[in-house]
Amino acid sequence: MKKFINSIDNLLDESLSGFAKAHADIIQLNTQPHFVRRNKPTAPGKVALISGGGSGHEPLHSGFVGSGMLDAACPGQVFTSPTPDQMLAAAQAMENGGGVLFIVKNYAGDVMNFEIAAEMLDCPHDTVLACDDVAFPKTHSTGRRGVAGTLIVEKIIGAAAESGADLAACKALGDRVNIATASMGVALTSCTVPALGKPTFDIGENEIEMGVGIHGERGRERLTMRSATEIVDYLSGIIDDDLKPQKGQSALLHINGFGATPLMELHLIYELASRFWEKRGVNICRSLVGNYTTSLDMAGCSITLSLLDEELLRLWDAPVHTAALRWGC
Amino acid sequence: MKKFINSIDNLLDESLSGFAKAHADIIQLNTQPHFVRRNKPTAPGKVALISGGGSGHEPLHSGFVGSGMLDAACPGQVFTSPTPDQMLAAAQAMENGGGVLFIVKNYAGDVMNFEIAAEMLDCPHDTVLACDDVAFPKTHSTGRRGVAGTLIVEKIIGAAAESGADLAACKALGDRVNIATASMGVALTSCTVPALGKPTFDIGENEIEMGVGIHGERGRERLTMRSATEIVDYLSGIIDDDLKPQKGQSALLHINGFGATPLMELHLIYELASRFWEKRGVNICRSLVGNYTTSLDMAGCSITLSLLDEELLRLWDAPVHTAALRWGC
Repeated sequence: MKKFINSIDNLLDESLSGFAKAHADIIQLNTQPHFVRRNKPTAPGKVALISGGGSGHEPLHSGFVGSGMLDAACPGQVFTSPTPDQMLAAAQAMENGGGVLFIVKNYAGDVMNFEIAAEMLDCPHDTVLACDDVAFPKTHSTGRRGVAGTLIVEKIIGAAAESGADLAACKALGDRVNIATASMGVALTSCTVPALGKPTFDIGENEIEMGVGIHGERGRERLTMRSATEIVDYLSGIIDDDLKPQKGQSALLHINGFGATPLMELHLIYELASRFWEKRGVNICRSLVGNYTTSLDMAGCSITLSLLDEELLRLWDAPVHTAALRWGC
Repeated sequence: MKKFINSIDNLLDESLSGFAKAHADIIQLNTQPHFVRRNKPTAPGKVALISGGGSGHEPLHSGFVGSGMLDAACPGQVFTSPTPDQMLAAAQAMENGGGVLFIVKNYAGDVMNFEIAAEMLDCPHDTVLACDDVAFPKTHSTGRRGVAGTLIVEKIIGAAAESGADLAACKALGDRVNIATASMGVALTSCTVPALGKPTFDIGENEIEMGVGIHGERGRERLTMRSATEIVDYLSGIIDDDLKPQKGQSALLHINGFGATPLMELHLIYELASRFWEKRGVNICRSLVGNYTTSLDMAGCSITLSLLDEELLRLWDAPVHTAALRWGC
């Protein structure tokens, strides 16, 4: 394993400190416990949006803290849930009279720890559970995982909260976006967790993992390597079956890199996926292509389709100023 | 080699087509010959800024086409100079009464082809040669290579051109930024050019290439793997020796990923590099951390320091709207 680190123990601290310095115009880092928060006051009564999860998926979630999106994010150790004290401290710091909405990816550890934090929180609160990964059926025992579609949930709720939507409205909106969003990923290589020092899983020179999770979890099936068009048609077909978009439906197409896949290839995937849905009469009216929900140094990508109505489109387009997403300001 | 492609022959076409669709709000793709151009008219008399180079470094340069930065970019095949007909067609399409300024990275093929295009161009024109890579001495036989600092040159000239600076002023400004900018990179792994199908160079499990070029060219020396602090101090020391910033000097610190290095590690590198210059009294007042001048799927990064005065700071901060850099609008 070759990585830019000094020691496993202070990797996260040094990285978060660098992140906070590089973006000191919009965020600050709280230590003991760790969370990244906006550094500008919000309007009284604004719903505070708190997310978080294991590190190793950067820019998710810390890169989405800022005006028009999250109020704070709690980074756990690599691929490990943050702890309830982080979530509670972040919620208490950011609560501003409008209550707290937690946005949680559906993994057992995250769900449990956010529940513990929520129980200790002494103000109105609610939770949106992101579960956009369609690699497994809706009936899967632990439910579907939250993956790259989570940022779309965060962006759209973020815009609503910024414009004064109350807690119940933000919660309902988040659930609506989550249901209208489906993702599926494919791995060409494993990732390597620094503390482990070797690849999380073995994969042959001619194999790909269809439906892989963002921590390297096994997916739907192991296939032999094939053309980009075949890969895109496979992933998009499952997403399309799940969402069943009508002809003329507007949608956002998000191609997410897992960390080690060149932008050149991600744009090629975008081209093929947009052709897939154009053929079906879907109107791909918004796009996002890049490394947003990563899996350390994994080569691979995910495709996310999110169905948009006029309200969701307006909220997606609303100004946002975070480290990783910025427009309109 | 596992990559998301259909065939080597149409990789670039499919990728550029996807790029153009994903960013159709600001750019369009010209084919025969290939160049990416702004899709909105510029003010009469504005200097047209044209860059380009081999593909495989995305988002450089196509990702920097748009308001406040480039007017057009000419993508060559992977790691191969674009051809003079691309540059000439881009210049003729974008020229709007203010002349043309070519921004060229210092590689023999690029320099030669931009020179041929310039000779055929029937309007006032000039060239800024980016050569910010301090891995080799100033006296090196072919001069220093243009690497990650090129985007800083493009951003700052872009802002000046947008605000009405004339050709001579843009040329002088570009040369000034180039001289005030120094970069140096390190590779942990090779990259793999799709048409070659295997790594460009061999590197051991415990080796790193100091001063590597963005095409995998040999650098200054091959060292054993070491701590992030030692790597940063090595790279920053050479940059510091070259630029010799005074105490109190303001500077932009740019940490650039080569494509396969997680953002978590790039922020750690930022932390260590900012400490290096803070100790020397340099005021790191602007930052840019991410994958901007990549080398396909290489793991590694470069550090760039760019000295800023008030004028350069104002131009860096001016609004920009491109696929890869956007603020203020």
